[in-house]
This record gives sequence, structure tokens and C-alpha cells, in this order.
Amino acid sequence: MIKIVVDAFGGDNSPIEIVKGAINAINEIDDLHVILAGDEAILNNLLKEYSYNSEQLSILNAPEIITNNEGATEAVKTKKDSSIVKGIVECKENDDIAGFISAGSTGAVLTAGFLKLGRMKGVLRPALCPILPTFKGSSVMICDCGANMDTKPEQLEQFAVMASAYAEVMGVNNPRVALLNVGTEDHKGDIRCKEVFPKLKENKHINFVGNMEARDLLTGDYDVVVSDGFSGNVLLKSTEGSMKTLLTCLKTEIKSGFWSKVGALFMRKTFKKIKDTFDYSKYGGAVLLGCKKLIVKGHGSSNANSITACIKQLYSMHEGKLIEKISSRLEKSGFVVNE
Amino acid sequence: MIKIVVDAFGGDNSPIEIVKGAINAINEIDDLHVILAGDEAILNNLLKEYSYNSEQLSILNAPEIITNNEGATEAVKTKKDSSIVKGIVECKENDDIAGFISAGSTGAVLTAGFLKLGRMKGVLRPALCPILPTFKGSSVMICDCGANMDTKPEQLEQFAVMASAYAEVMGVNNPRVALLNVGTEDHKGDIRCKEVFPKLKENKHINFVGNMEARDLLTGDYDVVVSDGFSGNVLLKSTEGSMKTLLTCLKTEIKSGFWSKVGALFMRKTFKKIKDTFDYSKYGGAVLLGCKKLIVKGHGSSNANSITACIKQLYSMHEGKLIEKISSRLEKSGFVVNE
Repeated sequence: MIKIVVDAFGGDNSPIEIVKGAINAINEIDDLHVILAGDEAILNNLLKEYSYNSEQLSILNAPEIITNNEGATEAVKTKKDSSIVKGIVECKENDDIAGFISAGSTGAVLTAGFLKLGRMKGVLRPALCPILPTFKGSSVMICDCGANMDTKPEQLEQFAVMASAYAEVMGVNNPRVALLNVGTEDHKGDIRCKEVFPKLKENKHINFVGNMEARDLLTGDYDVVVSDGFSGNVLLKSTEGSMKTLLTCLKTEIKSGFWSKVGALFMRKTFKKIKDTFDYSKYGGAVLLGCKKLIVKGHGSSNANSITACIKQLYSMHEGKLIEKISSRLEKSGFVVNE
Repeated sequence: MIKIVVDAFGGDNSPIEIVKGAINAINEIDDLHVILAGDEAILNNLLKEYSYNSEQLSILNAPEIITNNEGATEAVKTKKDSSIVKGIVECKENDDIAGFISAGSTGAVLTAGFLKLGRMKGVLRPALCPILPTFKGSSVMICDCGANMDTKPEQLEQFAVMASAYAEVMGVNNPRVALLNVGTEDHKGDIRCKEVFPKLKENKHINFVGNMEARDLLTGDYDVVVSDGFSGNVLLKSTEGSMKTLLTCLKTEIKSGFWSKVGALFMRKTFKKIKDTFDYSKYGGAVLLGCKKLIVKGHGSSNANSITACIKQLYSMHEGKLIEKISSRLEKSGFVVNE
């Protein structure tokens, strides 16, 4: 039985959609056990509505909630009974738990992962790694997208190694790793890029293909994009933001005229296909790479399907022995794993 | 007569579209004189096809061309007869020339601007500042979008001051200045952001409204976005790239089915309106702020209309006394302008 803790009180649609997503996952996967972290009374009441194998589900009573509006560090320190802190501590204390999922406060999940769960041996800094769909139907990862500010070159090299292992476990053969930069020429970029470029080029345990410009993120030519947390965050959010802006604009324009509404009826399938192509939720959430257990951060707006996807993602990573692979790859790359 | 030098041999569609764009501009503006920099024989031959007031046009013979495929610094040093170097030197040596426009190599334009024309007194580093259309019909500037790597906090403060003056000259009243960051809270970001935030907040000569996330670039809530060159470049290129990806995807899907093609016919006006909304070229090009004369860098794919827009933009900036305004604003902000 693979055990996974799910934060039932994180995200805009919690707890109802989270519970539904967890139930769907255990009804699909026989050897999966979900531990729902949250207020026991509320959860027990919600669970009455579902039929499921009771041996596959349990509750970790954690009545406190950390919101997006409070300081993450302070919240993690004081709210010991919150679903995030108690859930992550539960992961740490039990060898048979594979990891933790939350659609709640990103800051709190990162802080609790870092402080309460701890880093894998040899990892300088854990990194947050989301997956995005590309134009060609493949996917691309950004590592790091904001867990770390003021990233050092050797940290960036570790991000490349960890994300490469992650991509392989998720089924990408010999993943193409690129460095986010302002141009594709080898010598481009700021001091950080210039320092990490030769390190990435010399590392024989990754398939480094050179620098990448932000405009080429979704071309399908890259599997892993290595970036400092600041620029990675800008890349992720501007990609999401400009697509959303364009689609909103399209929607507004369609609604504003009779003929465009008629046209949109004919194009329903087209719009649906595009929506499906760029549907981030089917890939699950962003993974915090480098902690002692697997942590998946779902989107704040996660619905039941996204939560199920996150659970399946964590299940696959555990099956694929991601933690062990990262550890071995870091060691091969010359980072001291056994201190 | 306002004189402007235009690089006739820069960009994908040079020299034909550049010449056409220049002719259109002088035919529209009576007190404008365009100096076309490029191979005299070719230009004279092209000009035969147009009717225009010959007092409004002259040629600066510059037979060499700097391409995008050569090192900018080396090219600027060796190709003294190139349209970019000779054009910019012409600006420097003649008080009655307002500035220079090129759709050619960005690196060469920046390098020549910096080395051959020189900075305004008090300016630490010139910054490249493009304008993008927003969802609400307004526009937003990014300063810097890649002229500088490893930007210092005091340079960022100057970018805010210079771009603010630019936005005002372009008709924005009390422009809202935001700092590109990973979150909107005051304390967010890397060391650079944390250091520049209080400087921006304390500067009484700009209207600083706080931190901005990359996803909100096109909301219309900001007029000027201050950023280090690396992240600004990522922001600009990922915005352009993801919009292009989405539109390409839409086009491919429309072409793939009969009914979607029918639907697209009904929606022609809608698509045209959206294309117009996000048409960058109508705003002209990116301005290199902080040099002794005005420099506008047009998009590499500029056509005649974009070149005309760049010329009108430079004309307006000159009319609005942008150089003088930047100088005065820098002085008020405590930067030593008179050395």
C-alpha cells in the first residue's frame, strides 16, 4: 500500500473538491492509501456521501488552516495543528508515507517542506518545478519557478540534475535541458548564467542543449528549463498571464457581436481542443524537488480532477523511485550525498 | 526642421520597407527631415519610385551592413562605414539631429549608442524600454528589457525615473510605476528588489505603486514596469512567445476542419480586432533611454508602417523634450547630472 498525505483544507475549492479528488484516486488505484489532513469532524461529515474502500482512506486531524494572506514562516512556526504542518510532519515521521500534496499556500508548503521535512543529503536548496504543456503536445518543466531567490550557480546545476531525473521518471527519454537566458549564444547572460553554463556543459549526467530564450518555452524543443527562482517565476507567470489575457480578450470580443457568436458555435470543438492542449491541471502540480519526501503543490484553483492528477503524479514518482534517482544522480555529478 | 537618421539597412524587410516608411513619414509631417543611412547607389535607385519633397530627405552614404549573426562589440568597432555606426556618429556630431532609428541588430544599436553616442550626464546605464499594448487598450512599458545584465539597485531607480518621464512625454498622466517581482507584498523578491523597493517608495518624482507579478503585465493596471535587464527580457519574450504560440495553435486548429473554417469566416472581424489590440508595431519601437540623443530600436520584422510609427514616435519624443525632462527628473531625484 502506498500512503500519501493530502491537505484537505488548501486551495480555493477545499475541502469539497479535495475530498472528491482523493476518493476518485483511491477508487482508481487499488494499492493507494490517502491520509486526508484537516478538521476531522468536517471531513467525516463530507465522507459520508461517498462509497470507497475504508482501508484506503484515513484522516489526520489537523483543525488549523494556514491561509494565503498570512506570513508563511510565521504561520509554519505557530500553527502546528495546521493541515500543512501536521501533514508534512506526519510524512517525516512515518517511513511508509510517500509524500504530501497541497493546493494551499505555496509559501507555507515550501517553508514546511524545508524546515519540517528537510533536504535530501547533498541538496543545497530544494526547487519548485512545475510542468507546462507545449504546442507540440509534449510538456516542459521550469526548475526553479520561485522557491529560491538569489540562486547560486552550483544550485542551478543541482536543479538541472534533479529536474532531469524527474523528467525521466515521468517518461521523458534523455530529457533536453536548457538554461533560461536572454539569447541562445553560449556567452550570453548575466554573471550567474555565464558561471553555470560551463558547469552544465561539462556535466555528463544531463543532456544539456544550451541556452533558451523565453519566447521558445512552448515550442516543444526543450524538456527541462533551468532557471533562478526569480526569472523562472517571471517566465511561468507571464506565460500563464498572457495566454489568459488573450483568451479573455477573445471571449469578450465573441460575446460582443451576433456573427462572432454564430462563428464561435461552429468553432466549439476548436476552442475545446485548444483549451485541452493548454490545460495545466492534467499534469498534476509543481513538485518540490530535493526534500526527503515527495511534495506536490497543486494550483490554488485545483478542482477534484486536478487533485486526482496530483495524487497520480506523486504515486508515479514514488513508483519510479524519484528520490533514489535524484540521490544517485547528484552523487554521480560530484555533489557529496553521503556526508 | 526636425532631423532624424534612419538606418535603411536594418531589419528583415530592409531596405525597401524602411525607405517606404520614411517616405510616408515625410509626406505626413512637414517639418521633418529624414536622413537615410545606407548604400547611396541602392538608395538613390529605390527613391526614384517615390514622389516627395526633396528638401525633407537626404542620404548618408554608409555602404557596410552589420548583421544579427556577428558579435555586436566587434562589429561596432570595425565597421565604421556601417549604417548603424555611421548613423549614430552623425547624430552625435550634429546638434540639429534629434536621433536615430534602426530595425537592425539590437546588440549593435545598444553598443554604438553606448560607445559612440554616449550617456547623458548622470546616467549610470542606458536602458531599453519597449511599449506593449494592454488588454484595456492602454499601453505598458518595460524598462529595462535587456540592455543591462546584473543591474544594480541605483540603476533600477534611474530606469524608473527615465521611463516615467518617457511615459509622460507619450501622454500618460502621472504614470503608475511598478517593480517586477515574484509577489505583490512589499518584502518580496531577491536582494536587488529588496534594496530598490524603499528607494522607489521614497522617490517623490515618480508614482510608485508597488510590486507587480509577471501575470499582471497586460491588465492595464500599470504604465511602467521597472526590471533588471535579464527578467525584463524574460517578461517581454515570454509574453510575445506565448501569445504567438496560442495564435498559431488557433490558426492550425481552424485550418484542420471544415466547420471551424466556416466559424472563422463569421469571426473575421473579431480576430482582426484582437490582432489590432495586440499589434505592437503601432506603438513604434523600443527606446534606448539615457543616451545623449534619442535612439529607437524597431522590431526586426518591421514593415513600412512600423518604421513610420518609429519615426513619429521619435518626432514626438523630441517635441516633448524628453532628453531635457529626463535630465531634470534625474537631478531632482538626487542623481548628479552636472558633473
